[in-house]
Amino acid sequence: MAAICYEVEVLDTAARVVLQSELAANETLSPSGGDPREGAALVAPLVSEDHACDGTGASLLHRTAVSGLRVGAAMEHHLDAPPSMQVSSESFPDLGRVTITATLEPGQRLRLVKFVAYGWSAVRSQPAVADQAAALTAAVQTGWEGLVAEHGAYLDDFWGRADVEVDGDERVQQAVRFALFHVLQAGARAEGRAIAAKGLTGPGYDGHAFWDTETFVLPVLTYTVPRAAADALRWRYSILPKALTRAAQLGLKGAVFPWRTIAGHECSGYWPAGTAAFHVGADIADAVVRYVTVTGDDGFERDIGVELLAETGRLWRSLGHYDPAGRFRIDGVTGPDEYSAVADNNVYTNLMAQHNLISAADVAQRHPDRAQDLGITGEEIGAWRDAAMAMVVPYDGALGVHSQAEGFTSHEIWDLDATTDKQYPLLLHFPYFNLYRKQVVKQADLVLAMHLRGAAFTAAEKARNFAYYEALTVRDSSLSACTQAVLAAETGHLDLAYDYLTEAALMDLNDREHNTRDGLHVASLAGTWIALVSGFAGLRESDGSVAFCPRLPAGITRLAFTICVQNSRLNVEITPTTTTYRVLDGQPLPLLHDGQPLVVSAGSPISSPTLSALTRAAPTQPRGRAPQPHRAAS
Amino acid sequence: MAAICYEVEVLDTAARVVLQSELAANETLSPSGGDPREGAALVAPLVSEDHACDGTGASLLHRTAVSGLRVGAAMEHHLDAPPSMQVSSESFPDLGRVTITATLEPGQRLRLVKFVAYGWSAVRSQPAVADQAAALTAAVQTGWEGLVAEHGAYLDDFWGRADVEVDGDERVQQAVRFALFHVLQAGARAEGRAIAAKGLTGPGYDGHAFWDTETFVLPVLTYTVPRAAADALRWRYSILPKALTRAAQLGLKGAVFPWRTIAGHECSGYWPAGTAAFHVGADIADAVVRYVTVTGDDGFERDIGVELLAETGRLWRSLGHYDPAGRFRIDGVTGPDEYSAVADNNVYTNLMAQHNLISAADVAQRHPDRAQDLGITGEEIGAWRDAAMAMVVPYDGALGVHSQAEGFTSHEIWDLDATTDKQYPLLLHFPYFNLYRKQVVKQADLVLAMHLRGAAFTAAEKARNFAYYEALTVRDSSLSACTQAVLAAETGHLDLAYDYLTEAALMDLNDREHNTRDGLHVASLAGTWIALVSGFAGLRESDGSVAFCPRLPAGITRLAFTICVQNSRLNVEITPTTTTYRVLDGQPLPLLHDGQPLVVSAGSPISSPTLSALTRAAPTQPRGRAPQPHRAAS
Repeated sequence: MAAICYEVEVLDTAARVVLQSELAANETLSPSGGDPREGAALVAPLVSEDHACDGTGASLLHRTAVSGLRVGAAMEHHLDAPPSMQVSSESFPDLGRVTITATLEPGQRLRLVKFVAYGWSAVRSQPAVADQAAALTAAVQTGWEGLVAEHGAYLDDFWGRADVEVDGDERVQQAVRFALFHVLQAGARAEGRAIAAKGLTGPGYDGHAFWDTETFVLPVLTYTVPRAAADALRWRYSILPKALTRAAQLGLKGAVFPWRTIAGHECSGYWPAGTAAFHVGADIADAVVRYVTVTGDDGFERDIGVELLAETGRLWRSLGHYDPAGRFRIDGVTGPDEYSAVADNNVYTNLMAQHNLISAADVAQRHPDRAQDLGITGEEIGAWRDAAMAMVVPYDGALGVHSQAEGFTSHEIWDLDATTDKQYPLLLHFPYFNLYRKQVVKQADLVLAMHLRGAAFTAAEKARNFAYYEALTVRDSSLSACTQAVLAAETGHLDLAYDYLTEAALMDLNDREHNTRDGLHVASLAGTWIALVSGFAGLRESDGSVAFCPRLPAGITRLAFTICVQNSRLNVEITPTTTTYRVLDGQPLPLLHDGQPLVVSAGSPISSPTLSALTRAAPTQPRGRAPQPHRAAS
Repeated sequence: MAAICYEVEVLDTAARVVLQSELAANETLSPSGGDPREGAALVAPLVSEDHACDGTGASLLHRTAVSGLRVGAAMEHHLDAPPSMQVSSESFPDLGRVTITATLEPGQRLRLVKFVAYGWSAVRSQPAVADQAAALTAAVQTGWEGLVAEHGAYLDDFWGRADVEVDGDERVQQAVRFALFHVLQAGARAEGRAIAAKGLTGPGYDGHAFWDTETFVLPVLTYTVPRAAADALRWRYSILPKALTRAAQLGLKGAVFPWRTIAGHECSGYWPAGTAAFHVGADIADAVVRYVTVTGDDGFERDIGVELLAETGRLWRSLGHYDPAGRFRIDGVTGPDEYSAVADNNVYTNLMAQHNLISAADVAQRHPDRAQDLGITGEEIGAWRDAAMAMVVPYDGALGVHSQAEGFTSHEIWDLDATTDKQYPLLLHFPYFNLYRKQVVKQADLVLAMHLRGAAFTAAEKARNFAYYEALTVRDSSLSACTQAVLAAETGHLDLAYDYLTEAALMDLNDREHNTRDGLHVASLAGTWIALVSGFAGLRESDGSVAFCPRLPAGITRLAFTICVQNSRLNVEITPTTTTYRVLDGQPLPLLHDGQPLVVSAGSPISSPTLSALTRAAPTQPRGRAPQPHRAAS
């Protein structure tokens, strides 16, 4: 349902005004061509089944040509105008139109409130029509002011749980609210469907959902609209049967979730950067664990979580194998970085799989009856823990850094100096054979592992790894900036973190990659929040609670935000000198501030000193950071 | 040009005989479907431009629909029949037909000699027509007996230079002659074009040529029809400009020869098993070096060899890079084995590249004027030698075997016991993601390196490597058997070598893979010769001459063959006790017998003892050798 209020007033001299309000179907996209990330331009994908008009309304009913889904849309109008107004309506297979003509004298107004409703059905046309009719009737009865009030109340509630205030940088302040609004739009009304990479804002990536949802969007929703995070994971649960079938098809056990999908089937035609990116399973498991940790939703863990964790855990146990030395290896897979593919023992994948296996074992033991239902034996739980313990994590002792995957740090380093501005994004200008065999990173990969599996690295390793990989990472994916910001902040490079925050924040507002027309970068928008909250405030989940490590870059004088933890609303306010934690409502919350345990109760704020910026040396090879950003959608 | 003699005689009672002799175009293939190795079925690829008939002849002229090549075919007949004979001719766009009707009394004969000629032109129709007319006229004038005599003389000369005699196994005796005849057919009349994987015998692989030609077919031609080997390499030289362009397109220096091609362009649409198989360049270089070593053709080396070796050498120098430890690495390429792809430091590729680089340096220094023409500096020659010296050759110290590529021996071993007969060839029954990440071999790869770069391995390494890789190799490629035979023989497993010889020899005669309808496996046919001559006789090129290490398996009582070396014909006759070397004509030849130098002169045969079979232990893991062969075309 949507409503638009449109008002025109004549100021000086009388004028004849003609307003046309339309419903249109089958409008043709005109892609620029040559960019595989654009949506495929379907020509007339909808087949008209019915159309009608009556008085001030019109409706269209279509069927999608191939999949046979039926979708109905209807509009109605409230009109407020001088008596001279004339109204006519007409309808065609792909167009419904209401035309209002009026002659307005100076000071007279024409006010139109347009109500639009839609409904769809995969099975038959009747529900689609009925849905739209019911929704339209309800909207018309509620009226414009009533709808505005309802919407305002919904958003007031949201901002009360989720607002972020950034003093000192108006652009970032605007950007993070823009970002939160669009993450809410994409997530809150998914209604049992996937949250797509572009939400519903554009045709890019053909409306498909990826791992971005679990890894970047769900952390934000988990802390701000937890119900929406749970719904998104329930959608994953709804496609679990297809993921089990897919695993069997591939000769594997457990669940293989699709790399890109709408309805649960694998929709990627290029397996090295599709099916082989098995990490999506561990990303889903990670989102489940985070959701349960932050919300304490035991029912969800029991009903949904055990099964999702067990079936993804089974995948890892079946995908990996022990080498003769007793190490558990996961060979021939693709990690987050799409400029490498089909490598052995990708650190991100292995560490996320390790977490997946341990979490599966933990929840199976917490819910023995569910474990029994799912045929999980003590033997299997032991096998999960053994594989996790023996997981290979490649490390290059000579360089003193982790190797993104085995062999990666021995590859030739991409010659960034010889790469011109016009050659970005690299994927459109160089053959993949050349990208895959060299050290160049599209999506933060090892750096993301350091964010999501921080405890697996020492502080010194994080600093060295970040310096090494930040220099290899180009701006060809919108998924890197927020992660780089988080690790830049953690390793003490606050100005660099601020740069990356800005990059994520202004991706769409400034259309930095000239492709916002294809739709918003929803994960990058979520990344604005992540850069601020996980970056500068240092939010992490830790031992069933939350931990902070606040620090501010020069230029941001105050950062304050509210999040939902364990049904309590927690407000955190950071200034360069002091961090104050307030529980706005709900039970007392235990948390860590710079490693020190605190318990914050409603009405009793606790203030602690804000850490100074760390003073580590800046990364030594900033070649990956071109002055002109070359980042495109992932 | 072709001629057919057809004779029918009535023995008992008078009979009316009708003979129809046709030229047909655009006959439709009916592929079984589902096998990517079959030829694509083109529907009516030829467009008729002209047709004619006259008396006892007919002709067709067509143009290929897309590429516009013109091809003309014409037939004429000599008829010898009773006076009652009636002849009519007719022609249609895709059919020319001559019909002969005669009533034959007992003892009367109808004899028809059909002459067919064709010509083609890429530019205009006139030459195609003129060529066919001239060839047909010449054939008709020569007549059947004259043509038979010319053909016989040609083949007598060939068998005198190339025959192989195998006493004790009639099947193999027949098979090696069948093989030699077809290798001659494919190679001797290529006339400046590629020798395709199927020769001209069938539509499989769409008529494309691969590395098989240089690696399996040219060794045979080099020793038996050296002019044809030189012609084949001149064809590679003719497409060098396209290979230079391709390298530039990929951001590389030197020449990148296509993985599969007809006219020089890369025709593989799947880069991990196409472009990434860069070893084709080193295979060409290896064929050049072998041809020059065996023939002593200095003019060829100078005119063709220097440039081919230099441009392929330049590729390796540009494709590889030095790691910080100073080792020269070639990352992200695919070796001969198509069940692995895009790996680092494939042993075969690196060793062949090493040979390529050293050979390029050698010939450039032997022909300084040509080097100067090609802009080859002393600096560049030094860089080639340095890279060759520093080449990485992965070795797994724990297992005591070379690793086919880095990481290969750490991968999970394919479960051959759990693989059923119906699941071969694996490529049609398992996803590539699963094949690539496990230890299973389609084409002999490390084993082929031990054949072609034998000096790079110790005898003990060869024995261990062969035992390890033979067990991992399935029968899904026709390119493995001959190589397995050569190394089985070298490592003393003579019975196993005999098995593999038989497998290669009977591939097409017994239609073992049920796909001979798609065309003969020309490389496997050549492999029959290789298994006998490089396997049991142990032929290798060595220091500018040839070396033998003869040994016979139980069952073969005598192996004798003739080859051409340095313009001399050398006959080698091996019995279980004695090997005799005879120079049939030409200069005295130095050679090695079991490492001992001999010089054999015409008229002065030298006999030496034949080695007993070595007594090494058999391979310990023969799981790759299913009792039912599952080998298909490569």
